[in-house]
Amino acid sequence: VTRTHPIRTAVIIAVGSELLTPTKIDTNSLFVTERLNVLGISVRAKVVVGDSRDDLQTLLMEALGRVDLVVLTGGLGPTDDDVTRDAVAAALGRTLHEDEALVERMQQRFARRGLEMPAINTRQALVPSGADIIPNANGTAPGLWLEHDHRVIVLLPGPPRELKPMVEGELSERLAARVSGERLSTGVVRVTARTESHAEEAARPLYAHWRDQGWPIEATTLASPGSIDFHVTVRAADEETGARLLDEARGQLRDVFGEDAYSDDGRSLEQVVGSLLGAGGYTVAAAESCTGGLLMSRLTDVAGSSAYVASGIVAYSNEAKTALLGVPPALIAAHGAVSEPVAAAMASGVRAAAGTEVGIGLTGIAGPSGGTPEKPVGTVAIAVDGPWGVEVRTRVFTGDRAMIKFFSTQAALDDLRRALLRHGAR
Amino acid sequence: VTRTHPIRTAVIIAVGSELLTPTKIDTNSLFVTERLNVLGISVRAKVVVGDSRDDLQTLLMEALGRVDLVVLTGGLGPTDDDVTRDAVAAALGRTLHEDEALVERMQQRFARRGLEMPAINTRQALVPSGADIIPNANGTAPGLWLEHDHRVIVLLPGPPRELKPMVEGELSERLAARVSGERLSTGVVRVTARTESHAEEAARPLYAHWRDQGWPIEATTLASPGSIDFHVTVRAADEETGARLLDEARGQLRDVFGEDAYSDDGRSLEQVVGSLLGAGGYTVAAAESCTGGLLMSRLTDVAGSSAYVASGIVAYSNEAKTALLGVPPALIAAHGAVSEPVAAAMASGVRAAAGTEVGIGLTGIAGPSGGTPEKPVGTVAIAVDGPWGVEVRTRVFTGDRAMIKFFSTQAALDDLRRALLRHGAR
Repeated sequence: VTRTHPIRTAVIIAVGSELLTPTKIDTNSLFVTERLNVLGISVRAKVVVGDSRDDLQTLLMEALGRVDLVVLTGGLGPTDDDVTRDAVAAALGRTLHEDEALVERMQQRFARRGLEMPAINTRQALVPSGADIIPNANGTAPGLWLEHDHRVIVLLPGPPRELKPMVEGELSERLAARVSGERLSTGVVRVTARTESHAEEAARPLYAHWRDQGWPIEATTLASPGSIDFHVTVRAADEETGARLLDEARGQLRDVFGEDAYSDDGRSLEQVVGSLLGAGGYTVAAAESCTGGLLMSRLTDVAGSSAYVASGIVAYSNEAKTALLGVPPALIAAHGAVSEPVAAAMASGVRAAAGTEVGIGLTGIAGPSGGTPEKPVGTVAIAVDGPWGVEVRTRVFTGDRAMIKFFSTQAALDDLRRALLRHGAR
Repeated sequence: VTRTHPIRTAVIIAVGSELLTPTKIDTNSLFVTERLNVLGISVRAKVVVGDSRDDLQTLLMEALGRVDLVVLTGGLGPTDDDVTRDAVAAALGRTLHEDEALVERMQQRFARRGLEMPAINTRQALVPSGADIIPNANGTAPGLWLEHDHRVIVLLPGPPRELKPMVEGELSERLAARVSGERLSTGVVRVTARTESHAEEAARPLYAHWRDQGWPIEATTLASPGSIDFHVTVRAADEETGARLLDEARGQLRDVFGEDAYSDDGRSLEQVVGSLLGAGGYTVAAAESCTGGLLMSRLTDVAGSSAYVASGIVAYSNEAKTALLGVPPALIAAHGAVSEPVAAAMASGVRAAAGTEVGIGLTGIAGPSGGTPEKPVGTVAIAVDGPWGVEVRTRVFTGDRAMIKFFSTQAALDDLRRALLRHGAR
């Protein structure tokens, strides 16, 4: 028995000029990455290259210098612009020969559909010397498995319905026999109401601790509008150990961020809010000015939200705030439409109009015009009115109109979440 | 004047370990590719690499050996795992220095939000020697432009809302000065209410004609939810010739698609509808069930929409349809909440409640549950009620909850657009 080098790292190369246009994207790599991660293989880079022998050869050699496994997808069709087989054979110094069993299998495939095989298809039966064939149940192009200087090179067809069963089946089996036995586990903790740099500073002491563990945990942060996501990854002896270590890491992040950590199981903020509303048996309605319906739309993005959302009112003009929500004109005259008293009156107004237990009032200036020195564009007042009383807060967001709208709904959902956490138990 | 090497080819490198997970994909490269293609620069490869200085340095050097321009996106944040600045400086043998003007601009950004800048953020003011700064209007990380051995290296922040305006603005200008003499001109004609294949068949006779021109026009179609976009591109001797040829092509597409072509100047459907409402001096309100506020949110996405939008009502439950919109319970009992009579009653109800001239009623089943054999998930009834009378129509959309919501709002906006085109002149 020869001792082989365990496979720990991979590069995925997608081949096809159409994947370099502004409208096409390589999604096979997401699926391949998931299956490799399950086996404990981490993906170090992903590359998309056109139908160019030279470019592909260069990139393949470069990848073979850095990782244990290179997975190439696409470029195995029968036409001249399908260059993967040629480029791989040339890069590894192998000759191509026609595999008779493959030719026969292809002819049978065509015959079953009552067709004669075009001569051009015999190109798909060309195999670099030393390669193993990975059968393709759903197409003519077989997969290929090559070993070269303790590295493995795998060629797969591009169509997802051909590639997926090959990866799930024979490729996963072959790779499982060649990995070190360790497993990768990943999780995410989502934090709101912090800037990326503040969140990072708060989490940094954990990083040092995690690095020094027997099975180190790696963390990366990803900032999206209104949310900082901590992605944690651990490579451990087995899945149970990985899951336990991830649980600990998630708990430590929750300890650091307290109530600011709103999700540790992949749920979105609107899903978390929906669960809290459902658990407490509350119903909610929103009265929106500058967000124009986006808050209600996000609340109702959650399947099953009709259990806790009945209605909402978009009151864009001052007249609508009075007519539909009963906001006194004198209150608007005294404080301005964008003010905490008006937000509070909108929240209690929509509670009454919709007959819900909780009401949200949101009024602000989304821009680009309408700002003043005292109330610049981005000023937003948000009120949450519930059986426990009313809470109202003003924030100033920066960004364009769409961003200010989104940030405002994120803040309103977060205010509602915190109110339910503090007062909503019953 | 030094003669500089014209930029013809590019590699795009996206930096970020999260882009190597099974759930995240780099989409910035699609946008960047489109803008580069417009300038006549072709993309030879796209790479995704994790937060690893070594990997990034290797891939950058490899790319610089093959193309004229390398665009790097992401990895410019303030934290330790943001490695792009360091890796690029190391690869090119440049030192990093802190730019005082940048530090000051960042401090002002934080101060406007009432925050103190964390010390960690000064990392974002580190600039490799010889680099030009591309200002970032929407974030703290500036873009960077470097020249090295007749090659150009550009660093851009990862968040699309920061990157896009930088690419459209200063980067496009800088690159335009460095490409070869001919100019690419592009335009887009947007079509609704057609499938991609039908739209393509209708446009095909134009393609042959365009190919045979002295300066051939290339067309690609891009299907997005509820819209087929025809992107037309011409490479001509100068901008005037390009603009004239594009104008002709746009006119020919409008002739083919008639009223189905809703935009030929880059405007979105909600912008086109807003212009029609504004031109006729109409006001509008929407009563929404399954779209939960998304239609009103899209109407108010347009800057200046307060001129024609006053209010809207989300009536999710049957009770809300009756209480807030005056829909008779007997009508709901007789036809069901998702029916043309109820949509029409919602439209006239919201007209009355909001005091507008035009009302939209939208009721449907967004799923995943709630469908029946007669009214499957995706069934949506839309009514437009105006001074000219009421028009109502039922459609069945396929897709997940989010898609059905979006298709429904697209159809409602399109129904409103056609009603205004036919009846709205005054």
